[in-house]
Amino acid sequence: MSIIVQKYGGSSVGTPDRIKAVADRIIASKKKGHELVVVVSAMGDTTDDLLALAAKITENPSDREMDMLLSTGEQISIALLAMAIHSKGENAISFTGAQGGIFTDDVHRKAKILNIKPDNIVKELKKGNIVIVAGFQGIDEEQNITTLGRGGSDTTAVALAAALKADRCEIYTDVDGVYTADPRIVPEAKKMQEISYEEMLELAQLGAKVMNARAMQFAAKFNVPLAVLSSFSDAPGTLMTKEAKNMEEIVVRGIALQEDEAKITIQHVPDKPGIAAKLFKKIADANVNIDMIVQNISDKGVTDISFTVVLDDLKKTKEVLTPYVKEIGAGGLVTDENMAKVSVVGIGMRGHTGVAARMFNALAAESINIEMISTSEIKISVVIEKQNARKAMNVLHKEFELDKIEA
Amino acid sequence: MSIIVQKYGGSSVGTPDRIKAVADRIIASKKKGHELVVVVSAMGDTTDDLLALAAKITENPSDREMDMLLSTGEQISIALLAMAIHSKGENAISFTGAQGGIFTDDVHRKAKILNIKPDNIVKELKKGNIVIVAGFQGIDEEQNITTLGRGGSDTTAVALAAALKADRCEIYTDVDGVYTADPRIVPEAKKMQEISYEEMLELAQLGAKVMNARAMQFAAKFNVPLAVLSSFSDAPGTLMTKEAKNMEEIVVRGIALQEDEAKITIQHVPDKPGIAAKLFKKIADANVNIDMIVQNISDKGVTDISFTVVLDDLKKTKEVLTPYVKEIGAGGLVTDENMAKVSVVGIGMRGHTGVAARMFNALAAESINIEMISTSEIKISVVIEKQNARKAMNVLHKEFELDKIEA
Repeated sequence: MSIIVQKYGGSSVGTPDRIKAVADRIIASKKKGHELVVVVSAMGDTTDDLLALAAKITENPSDREMDMLLSTGEQISIALLAMAIHSKGENAISFTGAQGGIFTDDVHRKAKILNIKPDNIVKELKKGNIVIVAGFQGIDEEQNITTLGRGGSDTTAVALAAALKADRCEIYTDVDGVYTADPRIVPEAKKMQEISYEEMLELAQLGAKVMNARAMQFAAKFNVPLAVLSSFSDAPGTLMTKEAKNMEEIVVRGIALQEDEAKITIQHVPDKPGIAAKLFKKIADANVNIDMIVQNISDKGVTDISFTVVLDDLKKTKEVLTPYVKEIGAGGLVTDENMAKVSVVGIGMRGHTGVAARMFNALAAESINIEMISTSEIKISVVIEKQNARKAMNVLHKEFELDKIEA
Repeated sequence: MSIIVQKYGGSSVGTPDRIKAVADRIIASKKKGHELVVVVSAMGDTTDDLLALAAKITENPSDREMDMLLSTGEQISIALLAMAIHSKGENAISFTGAQGGIFTDDVHRKAKILNIKPDNIVKELKKGNIVIVAGFQGIDEEQNITTLGRGGSDTTAVALAAALKADRCEIYTDVDGVYTADPRIVPEAKKMQEISYEEMLELAQLGAKVMNARAMQFAAKFNVPLAVLSSFSDAPGTLMTKEAKNMEEIVVRGIALQEDEAKITIQHVPDKPGIAAKLFKKIADANVNIDMIVQNISDKGVTDISFTVVLDDLKKTKEVLTPYVKEIGAGGLVTDENMAKVSVVGIGMRGHTGVAARMFNALAAESINIEMISTSEIKISVVIEKQNARKAMNVLHKEFELDKIEA
């Protein structure tokens, strides 16, 4: 018998009627002869409601107590889903993270799964039960309830699939698969049948909001076949595997957009050893992640250093750096909030040359100016003005013929 | 150091502001030098909201999944209460029933506590933490979450007090103690300083809705000093102990009323062996509890049998008995829905004679007709017409001089 792990997100179980619809879907899978383990998130807005409740008590809740509070969200949805399955005549049993044997470290609110002991789950599967497991939560070695942080239910599902050596892990969400680009921006975007873990990971880190990046890393590491599907339709989704079909032939597989980038330039920095290092350490100490960095060639002993941060971190970064700019005698600090990052991703780039040139030419032909560039083996990212971002996405989608991919 | 177990009911923690007020009260107790274990119920309407949610999924939810669902209610309140205590600068940690070591049998929705392993609680008390434990819930030996049924949080508190050998168990509620009678019915009712377990148990079973009867039995069995106090005032409450002050001097300590009684009379039952037994077995098989029974002296080979049931069970009882009445050739079945039971309770009755006569005379003087009588060593109950119930309460309260008790 084959084991399938299915994961349903908060919007898929947002109301009692949706929970009943999910129950139908689960029973249909079971009737195809699979053993089923189902991971669910909290219903729709439950987590936000619980956060609001905590905010009425204190501005600084302890992480342990927040986990105690937030973990009730999934506990409610697993119970209701089990009831819905029962009412349709199938056997099911729900488990909290602790009961499901999800052991984590003790870092509350962003715990990492250390170990899964799926004995209870296996026992119930053997009895013919559909096993419903609370996503997003686990237990540390002291029996404290922990949560995995945003997107944690995806990780729970993938980790369970790995531990159970499942045939497939299906992530049901409100989109029906992975697209070559966001269809709201690029109307010609096509749904992919398959994509490699590596490409999907890059796309996720570059702004494609399909599923949690950590969950995908987990899937890649343990080679779990991972499908993204819609819980609102029966359309075939996108399968993530180690080896995607026609992998080498397709140069660019997808295009991603991050619109919340801000650029900071420190002008006329004295070009002495250690100054840049100290600058970036100050930023790191403020818990701000720097994305791209560009340093101009030194001219008369001074240089300009530019880098990008996410927009939310701009204020904090300016506060940290302003006194430092004076201290080192730099010329000043200039910021630009209206930046976006557009990235093309594809394993095929490895075997093809000239991808960057094609990309830059296509953008230049539309008079889109590139401010910064960053590349890796399988991706090229450019920072451009936000007002050009949507146009750039469409231009590149056409340039790399993504609209001609077979869905 | 003395350990005190405090229990706060759903109305005491009904809103974030009330939770903060409860936190103040707890911290004040801690500052008096006590080690504190606090048991809380679900916030106000949470349990009803969860029941309504389940009802939208199915009419017949499984008991195990209902426990999974309902137990989230207390989990939310313990987390919020711990946060509130933290925000006021004290140390606290919350525990689910499972984490608190509350082991029960596997009878979901009305589980019984079998065993308490308070190791985690003791460890945290020693660290200087206020320990907050979810009431109403536990875990069975298979790790399933169980609930204790309505009023279960009282039982959790008393059981913890017994297991921890606490100096006192304080039940905070929306009344400020136990009264000689319901003050809404008898304006002269006085709050008692002390009452014996035995008397309190009788009163609770006879309609006084102060606290859960099972919790009181537990307290009596393990001799846990139990106080009932208001969480909305600082008034001294009522202490329940084995030996109440002036116990023997006070003949009647309290008066209770049950207004939801129905009387059923089966007329002209042939007076043959086994007929009454079969009748009551039929009622028991329908899961209906019979309260009082009266059988007239046989007259010409037939007799009338009257008994009372709670009003909610009247319809079911009639359905069960109507065919039987024909089968045995009895005269008919008469019901009266407008009955009430008034009871006087006091350990002092043991040492005093004539209590029943005083009671019946006092009622007769007011032309209140007694339909049925039932007595035990420390109580006398009468069934009367509902319209006379409130008057009867006041008459008896005066007759036994309960208004002269020192508060």
